[in-house]
Amino acid sequence: MIKYPNGMEGLSLSKKTKKVNTENAANRGMGLEADINNANSYYNDKEIALITKRPTPINIVKVDYTRGARITDAYFEHQSTTDYNGIYRGKYLDFEAKSTRSKTSFPLGNISIHQIAHLKQVIKQGGIAFFIICFSVLDESFVIDASYVIDCFEKATKKSIALETIKKVGCTIRQGFNPRLYYLEAVDQLYFK
Amino acid sequence: MIKYPNGMEGLSLSKKTKKVNTENAANRGMGLEADINNANSYYNDKEIALITKRPTPINIVKVDYTRGARITDAYFEHQSTTDYNGIYRGKYLDFEAKSTRSKTSFPLGNISIHQIAHLKQVIKQGGIAFFIICFSVLDESFVIDASYVIDCFEKATKKSIALETIKKVGCTIRQGFNPRLYYLEAVDQLYFK
Repeated sequence: MIKYPNGMEGLSLSKKTKKVNTENAANRGMGLEADINNANSYYNDKEIALITKRPTPINIVKVDYTRGARITDAYFEHQSTTDYNGIYRGKYLDFEAKSTRSKTSFPLGNISIHQIAHLKQVIKQGGIAFFIICFSVLDESFVIDASYVIDCFEKATKKSIALETIKKVGCTIRQGFNPRLYYLEAVDQLYFK
Repeated sequence: MIKYPNGMEGLSLSKKTKKVNTENAANRGMGLEADINNANSYYNDKEIALITKRPTPINIVKVDYTRGARITDAYFEHQSTTDYNGIYRGKYLDFEAKSTRSKTSFPLGNISIHQIAHLKQVIKQGGIAFFIICFSVLDESFVIDASYVIDCFEKATKKSIALETIKKVGCTIRQGFNPRLYYLEAVDQLYFK
């Protein structure tokens, strides 16, 4: 069988349909990041906002200078802040994007205590802080204010936020083709109305 | 004549004995980053501002999963944005820090066209955009508004900005022990008076 790039392998129709579904679901974690980056490019090009992703921090152990500064040993570090920040309508924005395969609730275990501390600081400084939560199996994403998530995180009794609650407290992100996620429309609804 | 790196060529021996001093100066590039990170920790702890450094982007070629996701081949990428951004007095801040060993002027060749494009966007979105320029040999640092630097960068006739001009247009950063650079005082002078 010819291997096509980008999950196009196995072009017989029945197999392709299956393949695409399972691959989509498996790659949604990456997919959410790609979708947000794509939205950010769109918003930047249109001069609507300037929002960037912080690169993943990497701890470098060894660099080989004989090959023109090639890193030969390193490991991933946890982001001590959030993944995204920037400026929109003159306001500082800061948010974290999380994806879950659950169909009913978002598990708070996904969030690190560093991210909670960081977002609390953002709120104290007068910035806009939120989460983008993607229910990958349902293909639905939401913007939810960080203060609500922080409250739930700090109440030891709660280990997740129900989808129904997210729908009530947050705002559904409209999906399109390019960008796929018009997430700033949801930000407008929550913070600029 | 022995060729020393970093414009140290043609130094008589007596001057060369000052090697230790000049080596200190040579490391100031790293020193400036450390000083700004230190100032950011201070401002964050005191809840004065929330400013973070974007990690250096790294392009990963190979990861060895048998050793727990160890990166075995990767290389450094150029930052397509600036190094620092955050929130201060409710305003979005974005800046780049540069160090020069010159005693008389700051060479504009230090700045990439991506950084200029990024800072122009910041200004368009209503954010505060500036450079921190450190004259490492003189041990003096300044905050200078990005729009002035952008103007100079885009005028093909200018290849550097004279120290005298930076002193006039920008604001000297007061130095202390901890933090070493009270750079937000200079930001206050330039943007909040």
